[in-house]
Amino acid sequence: MKDNNFSEWYNEIIEKAEILDVRYPVKGLYIWLPYGLRIRNNIISIIKQILEAHGHEEVLFPLLIPENLLRKESEHIKGFEEQVYWVTKGGDKELNVKLALRPTSETAIYPIVALWIKSHKDLPLKIYQVVNVFRYETKHTRPLIRLREITTFKEAHTFHKSMEEAEEQVKEAIEIYKKFFDKLAIPYMINRRPDWDKFPGALYTIAFDTIFPDGRTLQIATIHNLGQNFSKPFDIKFEKIDGSFDHVYQTCYGISDRVVASVIAIHGDKDGLVLLPDISPYQIVIVPIIYKDSKKIVLENSMEIYKRLSKKYRVYIDLREDETPGSKFYYWEMKGIPLRIEIGPKDIKENVVTIFRRDTKERLKVENDSIEKFINDLFNDIYNNLRSKAWKRFEEKIVRIYSLNDIKSGCVNEINLCGKDSCGKYLEDKTGLRVLGEAIDKKEHGSCIVCKELTDKIYRIAKSY
Amino acid sequence: MKDNNFSEWYNEIIEKAEILDVRYPVKGLYIWLPYGLRIRNNIISIIKQILEAHGHEEVLFPLLIPENLLRKESEHIKGFEEQVYWVTKGGDKELNVKLALRPTSETAIYPIVALWIKSHKDLPLKIYQVVNVFRYETKHTRPLIRLREITTFKEAHTFHKSMEEAEEQVKEAIEIYKKFFDKLAIPYMINRRPDWDKFPGALYTIAFDTIFPDGRTLQIATIHNLGQNFSKPFDIKFEKIDGSFDHVYQTCYGISDRVVASVIAIHGDKDGLVLLPDISPYQIVIVPIIYKDSKKIVLENSMEIYKRLSKKYRVYIDLREDETPGSKFYYWEMKGIPLRIEIGPKDIKENVVTIFRRDTKERLKVENDSIEKFINDLFNDIYNNLRSKAWKRFEEKIVRIYSLNDIKSGCVNEINLCGKDSCGKYLEDKTGLRVLGEAIDKKEHGSCIVCKELTDKIYRIAKSY
Repeated sequence: MKDNNFSEWYNEIIEKAEILDVRYPVKGLYIWLPYGLRIRNNIISIIKQILEAHGHEEVLFPLLIPENLLRKESEHIKGFEEQVYWVTKGGDKELNVKLALRPTSETAIYPIVALWIKSHKDLPLKIYQVVNVFRYETKHTRPLIRLREITTFKEAHTFHKSMEEAEEQVKEAIEIYKKFFDKLAIPYMINRRPDWDKFPGALYTIAFDTIFPDGRTLQIATIHNLGQNFSKPFDIKFEKIDGSFDHVYQTCYGISDRVVASVIAIHGDKDGLVLLPDISPYQIVIVPIIYKDSKKIVLENSMEIYKRLSKKYRVYIDLREDETPGSKFYYWEMKGIPLRIEIGPKDIKENVVTIFRRDTKERLKVENDSIEKFINDLFNDIYNNLRSKAWKRFEEKIVRIYSLNDIKSGCVNEINLCGKDSCGKYLEDKTGLRVLGEAIDKKEHGSCIVCKELTDKIYRIAKSY
Repeated sequence: MKDNNFSEWYNEIIEKAEILDVRYPVKGLYIWLPYGLRIRNNIISIIKQILEAHGHEEVLFPLLIPENLLRKESEHIKGFEEQVYWVTKGGDKELNVKLALRPTSETAIYPIVALWIKSHKDLPLKIYQVVNVFRYETKHTRPLIRLREITTFKEAHTFHKSMEEAEEQVKEAIEIYKKFFDKLAIPYMINRRPDWDKFPGALYTIAFDTIFPDGRTLQIATIHNLGQNFSKPFDIKFEKIDGSFDHVYQTCYGISDRVVASVIAIHGDKDGLVLLPDISPYQIVIVPIIYKDSKKIVLENSMEIYKRLSKKYRVYIDLREDETPGSKFYYWEMKGIPLRIEIGPKDIKENVVTIFRRDTKERLKVENDSIEKFINDLFNDIYNNLRSKAWKRFEEKIVRIYSLNDIKSGCVNEINLCGKDSCGKYLEDKTGLRVLGEAIDKKEHGSCIVCKELTDKIYRIAKSY
């Protein structure tokens, strides 16, 4: 079903694997269930670790932004105006100043950072936070993909003493997200968004896009070079070495719940979730195979292995008595646990355990003494297998196209485009697809697919979420 | 200063130790700075661990609660009505249904749990979440103590098949919070709040109160037995073993940013923060003592010890070249780091390091080979010392009082009180203090301090935050 009707598969797996409860009585708001939340929290830990290794410090700013701050950068508010939720009352009193639920936190953070930065010695400054943000979406909402409460918004904000340093920071942000998505085995392409699709207030926006099983692309990370567009209205100034003053140069970059959507959509298969060992709530599930006459020895043995493996891994032992091994197998496969260890009387006699890996569905006998060593290798193997499978499917959905008539709506089309807005807009109108932007990692001589002007720019266009 | 003018000390340390930035331009909203946020995150980890060991599962519900749900339990909404922030607009459109920013999450969670629970087999159910909640406070706000955005609200919700089980759960909640506050070395007393001061919608409320250096008490945790007060309006029913149906019995309990306030206020001293090893962002700071002629060997040696200790502890090595050792000492003492290791040429010659402990300000020489062993013991010692000092100061502020005229406004007064609302209210009017409630762990025969009726109930009254 996953390939024929992805949307149905996705909605079903979100529910069956207990990622979210989608029955909250407000459009676009969902409930994280314990199993889904653990996956999400493991993913947050990974990005935090990477950001901190790159010198970012975590902060936490308020949710509520006074109207005057939100309106301070004019392009920014234009871009978000229609999507802002406004708090207008406290109890039964009208507030003097309307408060916005942050749609993103630039306008909450920058007036305060203006107080923090005095001199070039305070730069660069790199901070991040993981917060909930709100968008009054009028489009069709979808769990983890298009939300009114984005529950998992990781936003980083950086401050620099020159445009060159800001440009370097954009490159660092690209490296950060490459590491992150590589760790999650999520394939990506990196596109510089066309001007009409950049972040409101940015000089330019670079996006990571992945491809979903239905051929549609999903934006999974964005990086913005803000230049001095915010530092001027928010008056974030620093004293230079020569004693003169300048406004800082800024970047910001973010990811959201969509990362979790991608992990589900890209690695899952017809039988349910397929989770990487790094993010799975449990890395191993142990299922004792119980027969009446060997119950005691099997349980003892299973508990022993459970205790032993729990020292190194997140392990669950499924001792439910009202379920058969078969239904337990089915359940944990649907939940995507990377490894299942089956322990039956025969295994004990042979001094082995049976290991089932979720990704390839292979069953392997492993000697009791070497389980840990074996699992370590297997985890690497699972990661490598899922990653190369994902990239293979990803690349199969990208086509190099030279003529308007050949454009495929179920694929990502790589084309030569001169870069003028008019050609891009013409293309979107004509095809109903979205111009994702210019490939930052690819050039090839040719002529613009619309105006035929010579260019080496490659653009990507596709149907997108 | 801490003892003479606690309020000034507190505000200053919040700023100087970089816990919060208090300059956000909306009353009652503050910014978590990296150092403060790490302390807060370490504290959250501790409570999560304890809750999970007690079978609670983490969930995450939406922030926005539709008005009709918030109004479903009449006592509850009465209690919160004046404090609710209302979202009334999305973009420039009036919303059809006003949305409340959760002041607490009962009314968001319970309609969904009603869908989860079908049979006695689904019970007990124990869930929790750590979220931001909002109160439109009209009283004087204070960092971490009285907030409009409570950034760190840990709320647990439990569901049971009988009143007895709900009562048992209240006891478990008490045990959970005892473990938690013991781990933080925060002294507490446990009071059953008078009826007029219970949680809106609860049968009764049990609170943990601590005492601040200024003699005022601070509520740091509450536990509510909700009985069937919510399960009836929200129709949370289950099928019993005999096939009949009943509404579930519920409890809920929570803690907030106030835990961080307590850790700061109770263990800090005139020189700044004093942090427990478990929650300190760094457990150890290494300060190399540099002289020109021995710089190389001291730095090498310091880095070696830094690397060695980093395997077991959170360690920071302060290599700033523009600060003297003295100013580094002062800085890290103010920040509350439990241990400082000084490494100078003389130490290296003697094959020792100098260890300074923040809590007692002792300096100790420790042999290079046995640092780890020594630190482990020292961490225990620091914990025990801070805990017993805190409890000693706490108990000194509690007085046993037998007559209205003897009541002390700077202390917690333990008195006999019959328990009638009229006597309690009379006492509050007369003294200007707050009736914290009945001591759940103390009884003593006497007569009500107001009406002279015989009783063995002990109540506590005090000035409170």
